[in-house]
Amino acid sequence: MAKSKKKRIGLLTSGGDCAGLNAAIRAVVCRAVNGYGWDVLGIHEGTAGLLKRPPLVEEMGMRVFTGNILRMGGTILGTVNKGNPFAYPMPDGSTKDRSEEVIEGYRELGLDGLIGIGGDGSMRILSRFARQGEIPFIGIPKTIDNDVAFTEWAIGFNTAVAAATDALDRLQPTAASHHRVMVLEVMGRDAGHIALNAGIAGGANVILIPEIPYDIKSVADFIVQLKKKGRNHALVVCAEAVKTASGEAVYNSRSQGGQLRYGGIGHVIGEQIEQMTGAETRVTVLGHVARGGNPVAMDRMLASAFGVHAVDLLADGKSDRLVVWQHREVVDVPVEEVITRYHAVDTKGTLVHTARGLGICLGD
Amino acid sequence: MAKSKKKRIGLLTSGGDCAGLNAAIRAVVCRAVNGYGWDVLGIHEGTAGLLKRPPLVEEMGMRVFTGNILRMGGTILGTVNKGNPFAYPMPDGSTKDRSEEVIEGYRELGLDGLIGIGGDGSMRILSRFARQGEIPFIGIPKTIDNDVAFTEWAIGFNTAVAAATDALDRLQPTAASHHRVMVLEVMGRDAGHIALNAGIAGGANVILIPEIPYDIKSVADFIVQLKKKGRNHALVVCAEAVKTASGEAVYNSRSQGGQLRYGGIGHVIGEQIEQMTGAETRVTVLGHVARGGNPVAMDRMLASAFGVHAVDLLADGKSDRLVVWQHREVVDVPVEEVITRYHAVDTKGTLVHTARGLGICLGD
Amino acid sequence: MAKSKKKRIGLLTSGGDCAGLNAAIRAVVCRAVNGYGWDVLGIHEGTAGLLKRPPLVEEMGMRVFTGNILRMGGTILGTVNKGNPFAYPMPDGSTKDRSEEVIEGYRELGLDGLIGIGGDGSMRILSRFARQGEIPFIGIPKTIDNDVAFTEWAIGFNTAVAAATDALDRLQPTAASHHRVMVLEVMGRDAGHIALNAGIAGGANVILIPEIPYDIKSVADFIVQLKKKGRNHALVVCAEAVKTASGEAVYNSRSQGGQLRYGGIGHVIGEQIEQMTGAETRVTVLGHVARGGNPVAMDRMLASAFGVHAVDLLADGKSDRLVVWQHREVVDVPVEEVITRYHAVDTKGTLVHTARGLGICLGD
Amino acid sequence: MAKSKKKRIGLLTSGGDCAGLNAAIRAVVCRAVNGYGWDVLGIHEGTAGLLKRPPLVEEMGMRVFTGNILRMGGTILGTVNKGNPFAYPMPDGSTKDRSEEVIEGYRELGLDGLIGIGGDGSMRILSRFARQGEIPFIGIPKTIDNDVAFTEWAIGFNTAVAAATDALDRLQPTAASHHRVMVLEVMGRDAGHIALNAGIAGGANVILIPEIPYDIKSVADFIVQLKKKGRNHALVVCAEAVKTASGEAVYNSRSQGGQLRYGGIGHVIGEQIEQMTGAETRVTVLGHVARGGNPVAMDRMLASAFGVHAVDLLADGKSDRLVVWQHREVVDVPVEEVITRYHAVDTKGTLVHTARGLGICLGD
Repeated sequence: MAKSKKKRIGLLTSGGDCAGLNAAIRAVVCRAVNGYGWDVLGIHEGTAGLLKRPPLVEEMGMRVFTGNILRMGGTILGTVNKGNPFAYPMPDGSTKDRSEEVIEGYRELGLDGLIGIGGDGSMRILSRFARQGEIPFIGIPKTIDNDVAFTEWAIGFNTAVAAATDALDRLQPTAASHHRVMVLEVMGRDAGHIALNAGIAGGANVILIPEIPYDIKSVADFIVQLKKKGRNHALVVCAEAVKTASGEAVYNSRSQGGQLRYGGIGHVIGEQIEQMTGAETRVTVLGHVARGGNPVAMDRMLASAFGVHAVDLLADGKSDRLVVWQHREVVDVPVEEVITRYHAVDTKGTLVHTARGLGICLGD
Repeated sequence: MAKSKKKRIGLLTSGGDCAGLNAAIRAVVCRAVNGYGWDVLGIHEGTAGLLKRPPLVEEMGMRVFTGNILRMGGTILGTVNKGNPFAYPMPDGSTKDRSEEVIEGYRELGLDGLIGIGGDGSMRILSRFARQGEIPFIGIPKTIDNDVAFTEWAIGFNTAVAAATDALDRLQPTAASHHRVMVLEVMGRDAGHIALNAGIAGGANVILIPEIPYDIKSVADFIVQLKKKGRNHALVVCAEAVKTASGEAVYNSRSQGGQLRYGGIGHVIGEQIEQMTGAETRVTVLGHVARGGNPVAMDRMLASAFGVHAVDLLADGKSDRLVVWQHREVVDVPVEEVITRYHAVDTKGTLVHTARGLGICLGD
Repeated sequence: MAKSKKKRIGLLTSGGDCAGLNAAIRAVVCRAVNGYGWDVLGIHEGTAGLLKRPPLVEEMGMRVFTGNILRMGGTILGTVNKGNPFAYPMPDGSTKDRSEEVIEGYRELGLDGLIGIGGDGSMRILSRFARQGEIPFIGIPKTIDNDVAFTEWAIGFNTAVAAATDALDRLQPTAASHHRVMVLEVMGRDAGHIALNAGIAGGANVILIPEIPYDIKSVADFIVQLKKKGRNHALVVCAEAVKTASGEAVYNSRSQGGQLRYGGIGHVIGEQIEQMTGAETRVTVLGHVARGGNPVAMDRMLASAFGVHAVDLLADGKSDRLVVWQHREVVDVPVEEVITRYHAVDTKGTLVHTARGLGICLGD
Repeated sequence: MAKSKKKRIGLLTSGGDCAGLNAAIRAVVCRAVNGYGWDVLGIHEGTAGLLKRPPLVEEMGMRVFTGNILRMGGTILGTVNKGNPFAYPMPDGSTKDRSEEVIEGYRELGLDGLIGIGGDGSMRILSRFARQGEIPFIGIPKTIDNDVAFTEWAIGFNTAVAAATDALDRLQPTAASHHRVMVLEVMGRDAGHIALNAGIAGGANVILIPEIPYDIKSVADFIVQLKKKGRNHALVVCAEAVKTASGEAVYNSRSQGGQLRYGGIGHVIGEQIEQMTGAETRVTVLGHVARGGNPVAMDRMLASAFGVHAVDLLADGKSDRLVVWQHREVVDVPVEEVITRYHAVDTKGTLVHTARGLGICLGD
């Protein structure tokens, strides 16, 4: 980074929102402004904000210092799920590479570096764009799905697990009172981390995750057996992207035709369970309730550590690195390594073993 | 009530479960056992428990005193939504009057009185059954819908409002981050109390309730105007049983063919809003999450006051009365008066005026 | 109010803060700005803001509409506990009547009316000041203590009860695990409403309130009896201003020498219980934790209804009235009537009877 | 372990209670009973239960399977803080080695192994006792203080952090409304983990931990500077065992004469800050509120994983090992290694650096 003038860096959030983004924004601003004397420009709506002329930005100091954003869900910078600048959706349905316009927007702001908070999809785009524009870039991982490699936790995951666990805590008494099966569908895209963690924490009897294709007959038999053992109700958690063992297609709500919609598979499974077991069944699709909400303490701690370290890396002249959480420490890894891997649930790992050890049916 | 032997009373919960039922059960048991030296038999699964031979009952003292049920949602006695003994559903699809069998079950237990916790439907059945069997009967109102006449609050309502408000608190940040319209469908059967209270408390921009038929065009126009004024997102709460102004049928999830299912109208409205406004829209159907959960303080206080007063009434030789909450006090009214009225949202009342005063669109 | 120019009203919060103040501020602004086309000037730090030159004010529209203050505890306007303009504390320890300066400050702003949110102490001051200055004035009651006459609820009370109940929910398991007596001291000044409501809702075994002088021997005997009956732990809630039956002075934390400190009596009682019963005892002084926090749904609903009605009253040319909640409706009463009464716990009322009915020891 | 008869193992909780103990109990019972067909005897009140004749035990199956203990704080087995069998406190004030009696109690039950859930103090005792009695023993770490070596988390810590963070969330609005300094004293014995984690997550301006001796003048200066920068309030978190830089004694509430009392240093610090800065200051001692409460999702997940693995180790014939959480996995280490180390806050680690990076004053 240049040394003669006061430095200024850009900061953006990208992809689906989650709890803890504002805590990361705050940490970046505190560290950059107070620690290094830099300015921070908040870029609104992800890379889309850099396509606008003038770019959609905001000087971050005051809002962060006087506001109380640490405790708030969402992102004060706004974000978008679509708008990949390398394949920008045009009105006529085609896509166009608008990456140079984004780089121009960045240049126009006279920035000395960029910090981007996003999931692995966003990292792929931001890293490519940064290399193309020779922009010092540091990434901070966020995703309720927790599917980013190399980091034990991504921002937002623990809050989503807490929300799903809370839903199970609420569903259990009504299930028991009415002798019902309650199906809870949770987000998680292609990974079952939310379903697995919340299922264990929330006392689920059945947990269905994409990494373990399920056989609905096994599930139904298990519920019938539970009843025979005297358990008059059951809690079932399923991830949105579960797959059947037979390979037949299951309605996956968020991946239909690129539409990021939500809801579906839970209702299918609930109906099948009701038909096959005769048990009264109710379905809840938790949806965006798990995404929003105030961040739990762990997400705020994580986001704070990530934000501080990201700024330190820029100050050290590093680029194209992702900050990650490993064994109680923040460290950093090349973005490229991260985006070529995927962190699915380890079907031989501790949590799957724990679930089986508790007697939870995983559908196989 | 007879005076020579130790008295024993029956206690049951009936209809859909809600938070606070256990607090009422605890209060009845504490008052009857400690205050009057009576025994309390908990009858499981509502009147269905009295159809079993022997009746499905449990001595209540120990479980209540050693347990911690005050804080827990649901009902430790279990409950059923169906099984009206005057029109009992038979396997062949017909119905049969089995009320005499229920009365026999009651007699078999040698009970001196009955306390039933339920909604207005349950009160209608229990009161009729009690008169037919000459059974001293006191009712305690519970329903998340809060549609029981004469009482400011029924048990469960305030917890349901809190849950729906919490959902709006969680949806707001994600709505703002993505510039979306979030539609939240809440329970409430034919009454809009949950939607109206939670909508005001949770900062909704639009609240749709059955008592005010809505015009989707008004809703869409309102949202478009909001956007023009600079509000980049909107929260819409709708009750499950909303009606359109034009009178056209709307899918009402819980009333379809007697099926107590849940979910539907929110998705219809969300799709219409998206089409008419172009705003990205997401729908959440809160479902049973609002029904379960630990009772809020107000529901525990209310349930405790109701339970104590119900026992006092039996001790005073009263019957066929419902305990109600009016102006900071527990009083009681004849069950018959209650079940011939209905407590809908007062469209000229304080809360509707408050909603309009806040600039909330009510769909008309 | 004058009719020729655009009206503008002042709005201030006064006395101790509580949850729901911001919801009331928001409602006043929404109603005045959107409903009547007025401006609202937020006066900072209560009447102290009117002593500053220029007065400490802020145009309220944008902050309210773009912020999310409905959900936040505290008051964005700030408040002070001291600074009665009729007896203003001077540096030399004397007091001075500075009421004319406050009125001047009000005049300088060209205001057409004033809405003040405060407890009964604040109402006494604001009403006197308004009459002296011939200022149209409407009051909105707030106080966690709920000791304002004529209104079932004041803003902040229900959140404080929820916080104290939550503390009991947290203390119960640790009490049971260690066979301990847990004493929880809660605020409430001269009234026992928080202690009584939270004690019932939170499953306390002993509730001590100022309205019922207590005999520590009765309390100790009761706890010993509980243990004999097999209850291995006990929860005791005491209000900060409890009095002993013998009339001996008890340390009252907030009233010592005008110092608004907090904490004390709980420790005294805890020590006495430990000595007299031999039970291991732990004390928690909840303090300001109960005052802050996000408002519960009921406080937001109440504050919203109050705010809208207060503006309506000013628009109707009313003055010197307090908005109150009675039997599900907002109505209004003369401020003077309110400040000449006091709403203590009714020792013959429903909640005291409920507590006794549950077998709770009230110390007498 | 013997192979001819049905195996039975003992299970106890020891030391201060915390959230998640019941989740661990449940996991042990599920795994042992369902997975291996063993019986589990719950030993009440730690090793004290083995001193009773007959020993204080309970067959665990039914209570665990029908109860809902996963979600509940505390321990259904009860626990004691004192009663080290190697130095048992006698009525005359002396201590006595009663370890052989404890071993006898264990033998009397015909147990094939023992699982003990406790902190490092308990592990020291249990491991010694197990070696002396040649008892197969597996330990599970719990402590809100998180000071057990080798494990990233001990059961109860994350719930305690969440509770302390929640307290800060509640204190912030009231601090801001009144321009006050709020001091929150939290538990943590000799380690500052709770204070540091909650302080970062809860937006504290000052965090004082035992690992970094503090200079009250630095703290006061920092608060004065904050005010000059326009921050009208401050949040201070201090651990109960903080030490001053000058080495002078500070009142440490839990370590006074072996008395496990709580509360003190927060008040000292609050008074000093008020005197040195002139800022109105309020103090809250969170106390046992942070210890109790329902476990957060992470504690339930952790406890479940620990419980399952502990049983697996016994089944594998292992002994004298502690299950620990490292890098997303449960592993196990020799108890002896654990109890000879101590896990204090790493003053060069990520969280201290994060705190400094956010501009938080650590008192040095």
